[in-house]
Amino acid sequence: MEALIRANEGHAVSYGGDIWTERAVGKFRKHFGDDIEVFFVYNGTGANVSALSTITQSYNSIICSELAHINVDESTAPEKFTGCKLIPIPTRDGKIYPSEITDRIQRVDDQHHPQVKVISISQVTEYGTVYSVEEIKALSEIAKKDNLILHMDGSRISNAAVSLDQDFRTFTVDAGVDVLSFGGAKNGMMFGEVVIFFNREIANPYKFLRKQSMQLHSKMRFIGAQFEALLTNDLWKESAAHSNAMAKLLESRIRNIPKVKITQRVDANSIFALVPKEIITEMQNEYFFYVWNDRTNEVRLMCSFDTQEEDVEGFALKLRQLVG
Amino acid sequence: MEALIRANEGHAVSYGGDIWTERAVGKFRKHFGDDIEVFFVYNGTGANVSALSTITQSYNSIICSELAHINVDESTAPEKFTGCKLIPIPTRDGKIYPSEITDRIQRVDDQHHPQVKVISISQVTEYGTVYSVEEIKALSEIAKKDNLILHMDGSRISNAAVSLDQDFRTFTVDAGVDVLSFGGAKNGMMFGEVVIFFNREIANPYKFLRKQSMQLHSKMRFIGAQFEALLTNDLWKESAAHSNAMAKLLESRIRNIPKVKITQRVDANSIFALVPKEIITEMQNEYFFYVWNDRTNEVRLMCSFDTQEEDVEGFALKLRQLVG
Amino acid sequence: MEALIRANEGHAVSYGGDIWTERAVGKFRKHFGDDIEVFFVYNGTGANVSALSTITQSYNSIICSELAHINVDESTAPEKFTGCKLIPIPTRDGKIYPSEITDRIQRVDDQHHPQVKVISISQVTEYGTVYSVEEIKALSEIAKKDNLILHMDGSRISNAAVSLDQDFRTFTVDAGVDVLSFGGAKNGMMFGEVVIFFNREIANPYKFLRKQSMQLHSKMRFIGAQFEALLTNDLWKESAAHSNAMAKLLESRIRNIPKVKITQRVDANSIFALVPKEIITEMQNEYFFYVWNDRTNEVRLMCSFDTQEEDVEGFALKLRQLVG
Amino acid sequence: MEALIRANEGHAVSYGGDIWTERAVGKFRKHFGDDIEVFFVYNGTGANVSALSTITQSYNSIICSELAHINVDESTAPEKFTGCKLIPIPTRDGKIYPSEITDRIQRVDDQHHPQVKVISISQVTEYGTVYSVEEIKALSEIAKKDNLILHMDGSRISNAAVSLDQDFRTFTVDAGVDVLSFGGAKNGMMFGEVVIFFNREIANPYKFLRKQSMQLHSKMRFIGAQFEALLTNDLWKESAAHSNAMAKLLESRIRNIPKVKITQRVDANSIFALVPKEIITEMQNEYFFYVWNDRTNEVRLMCSFDTQEEDVEGFALKLRQLVG
Repeated sequence: MEALIRANEGHAVSYGGDIWTERAVGKFRKHFGDDIEVFFVYNGTGANVSALSTITQSYNSIICSELAHINVDESTAPEKFTGCKLIPIPTRDGKIYPSEITDRIQRVDDQHHPQVKVISISQVTEYGTVYSVEEIKALSEIAKKDNLILHMDGSRISNAAVSLDQDFRTFTVDAGVDVLSFGGAKNGMMFGEVVIFFNREIANPYKFLRKQSMQLHSKMRFIGAQFEALLTNDLWKESAAHSNAMAKLLESRIRNIPKVKITQRVDANSIFALVPKEIITEMQNEYFFYVWNDRTNEVRLMCSFDTQEEDVEGFALKLRQLVG
Repeated sequence: MEALIRANEGHAVSYGGDIWTERAVGKFRKHFGDDIEVFFVYNGTGANVSALSTITQSYNSIICSELAHINVDESTAPEKFTGCKLIPIPTRDGKIYPSEITDRIQRVDDQHHPQVKVISISQVTEYGTVYSVEEIKALSEIAKKDNLILHMDGSRISNAAVSLDQDFRTFTVDAGVDVLSFGGAKNGMMFGEVVIFFNREIANPYKFLRKQSMQLHSKMRFIGAQFEALLTNDLWKESAAHSNAMAKLLESRIRNIPKVKITQRVDANSIFALVPKEIITEMQNEYFFYVWNDRTNEVRLMCSFDTQEEDVEGFALKLRQLVG
Repeated sequence: MEALIRANEGHAVSYGGDIWTERAVGKFRKHFGDDIEVFFVYNGTGANVSALSTITQSYNSIICSELAHINVDESTAPEKFTGCKLIPIPTRDGKIYPSEITDRIQRVDDQHHPQVKVISISQVTEYGTVYSVEEIKALSEIAKKDNLILHMDGSRISNAAVSLDQDFRTFTVDAGVDVLSFGGAKNGMMFGEVVIFFNREIANPYKFLRKQSMQLHSKMRFIGAQFEALLTNDLWKESAAHSNAMAKLLESRIRNIPKVKITQRVDANSIFALVPKEIITEMQNEYFFYVWNDRTNEVRLMCSFDTQEEDVEGFALKLRQLVG
Repeated sequence: MEALIRANEGHAVSYGGDIWTERAVGKFRKHFGDDIEVFFVYNGTGANVSALSTITQSYNSIICSELAHINVDESTAPEKFTGCKLIPIPTRDGKIYPSEITDRIQRVDDQHHPQVKVISISQVTEYGTVYSVEEIKALSEIAKKDNLILHMDGSRISNAAVSLDQDFRTFTVDAGVDVLSFGGAKNGMMFGEVVIFFNREIANPYKFLRKQSMQLHSKMRFIGAQFEALLTNDLWKESAAHSNAMAKLLESRIRNIPKVKITQRVDANSIFALVPKEIITEMQNEYFFYVWNDRTNEVRLMCSFDTQEEDVEGFALKLRQLVG
């Protein structure tokens, strides 16, 4: 917010020619290396879809988890804008694995069949789990072997970095990721996400596709200023570490509540748990959370940069009381 | 062919205003009832995709079998042209079932999620099986209840009619199908397929979408003339009955060959069978067929309107010899 | 900015269920009437394109001025996202006129030809001129007669309102406009635009198309809060009146400079003028402006909410000196 | 027709692996050189649109005459399928000229503006005129200089060849054309058109895009067989020479009829003429022709491969009588 106030003063060149944008790009270069292209966009769907449209032809297909944000939470923007088919892989833990991908690389060069071109993974996954560096490298190896491109939806990448206790580049560019959607909104920003290409050549058409996908902001300094702030003094890490810690705390508090069953590893800032159906509504009256699966009564509990310890304790207490 | 020769004589109005087209449409009305709209197009992909684009908005999704022609054999034409997501249902017999569809009607009215609008089934299915009238009615009931549209890919509909021993309308319009792709090429035609709407209102935009999808033939009489011939004197039935019979014969001849295992019901004109890997190439040298699954060595054997009894016997004999 | 700081405090429901969004929508209802639908989006291109995609089928065409933002400044987003053809009308003053539209409504119901569906006008136009209420009504009459929809790109609608000395609804909904893109960024906002439907029925699919066009902001309160502030205490009018006044002042200061020729009416906050080629670079070193036409050396001078009187006087003085 | 009968006998590999297709491709190689790629499709719109989609990115624009078939007679298929903007150039004679193109190559590398990538010309033009070899070379020079691709819509290319008295390659590949839609239906074929790439590299993605654009015929031999026949013994030339001659005859017969004014050069097989409004309907009762412009009463008279001398004489006589 303070960053925005400073950016609001004085005049500035529009469409990214300003110093806030420049400084923010510089910060990204520090984290990811100099040989990258960095583009600011509005939101996560915009980041994913515009990135995917740059690395595909319309007759391609994109492999992802069946739970991937691009598969279930972006309307049909990926299909509409890229023309491609998404190939969803069933998942138990939110991740996809090399053998599953190999199985789906079929009928190569057959004009009748969508041609696989992209592997897209989410880090943190939609089930709150985090790919290890080795898991990402294994996917990257398949991508390289079969001439595919590895895309990472990093809307919660900061939580992943904290969870892995690694800097960003270790599990992205150094692990073989080609294109990254780097999240801002889920780490406290007012608006703004980033698309980073680790291969400058494939980034060539991107500026046109960003504009065409309605993601080019005129007053780009307001996105740049927020990212500069986020990447300064490890503000990103502080926020993410806090939300991860709150999730761990919550896990420890509810793990032993009878009739409550945690269903996924708590790697980052979300917890998935089966709870008795009859207590859900009353919990929701007091706390905001989604029912993930209304057949199994699995709920998703998210901790964020502004979740307080009292909230966590209060939630756990209430849950324990209701479950009785 | 004779029909084409007749249509080739004299002048004719283009784009469907000719008498061949009119007579062919009349034949379809006899089979399906008067309250229908009939449109000629070039091929099966064109029929399916232009039909789907008429009954969807770009934010919709289309439920189909994972093996559906629209899902695996039409490049990404369905996604590119409609903008929609295809939701593939895993299948053992080529069919999809009501409970599987109900499971996938999720997050209705949620702007983030593709909104299911179409159930698309293939009759005959890609596994050579045929939906019963009751199975189609059950799917139609779900469609009506949830305001969905039921599309049938009938590229081999003649084989299905013969298999069910029903006239066309019993398992299409009378069973609740809304839109039908009616196949010509797989029943002996040189080119041409048909899209039939059983609800005239939803057909309104179709003429524009057919042109836009590059499926409007100027000399439409050459498609009309072929369909008129196909639908006259039960020529369609003769062809389909023959190919179905050849498949039955083939089934009886290879069912007991050791190490050969038929994997699907032989309802129409195709047979799926596991065969020893080592004999496939030698068989293919003499007979044209596809390996359906090269991990399991499942092959697909298609009988057509011009398959001869000797071909079948020869194939079975050769197979028995090679298997030893 | 202060509005943003307030919206930043405390928790809020995402995707528009918050009180800032609700209050901002209430403000729009005060200006435009209760029977409207109001949707917040990110930017002007997003507003225009998502609105156009709601009111067209892919086989339609959209009539606009050849200078329209949708025609020359939005990449090919309108074509890509709607599938429609844009029909550009040559213009001398930035406006399009009824007889020009009538000329282009051709081959109605002809499947081979794009079917005109939308008239899109910009208010203020790209040449800085403002449509009178009567001019808009005349366009609306044609639209109603031929079953077209009238869209207004109002990225600078506040300047138009001040110029016409009318409230917003007089020259929009009351003049027959069906859909409006209401600008925020060009009136001082950090980000955010609005799409307003004056006919609630045609707005039905919009929420899905907004999401699909990547224009749905999760933290919508930050857009709502800005619009609430803009529409409170006539802040919008103050800003627009100021920029319009600065343009009038600039016009009066440079009108009589020799070799400078003002080419368009100065209705709002921009001035178009022919200037000697040799002085352009030196002027641009000190002042930011675009060369509109580098063959005729026509430049576009924009005044904004933060243009100061000294800037205007300084610019005019410098220009007079250089021209000599 | 005889060619089709022959192709109808015996079995054949589908999707173009047959000998008819191979022989037809060989014929094209004889006419255009060996270093080409030849693809059969269904119709003219399919040929143009699938070709354009191969040589553009979605943020490009395509320059053509305002009368171009791709601009006014293909619904919005070009926009829908390529995403590109068409830039129509006003024309008096159906042609477009180098200086007009240069004027429209604007804002190169500007992300906000559609980027010109293709010049598309029709040979014969929609006004029945024929580009000279020099005119095509001049357009090609601009294309090469500005990194554009020159596409020719040759739906009536045979008539152009006869009119120019040149072989095909002189005014296509040798004049700098990169991609050609070669017409079949307008030269007597039952169905089928061809896309020819004179640069094999740009043809790489075409096979996928042909399938995706629903233009891949399974029984391709029936297209190949017709083209083989058309290109054998100069059958194409005979047909085109005949229709051109009939047009010349018609021109000579009606040129001096009072109140009839021929408006375009008669280079090929069509005549444009102003005729008195009151005689149009009566003429149309007996002869099929289009009113090109119902404000000026300009009509288009097309001669085809099966127009007879008596038809021409009869038409001219009737016209003279009615005009009085």
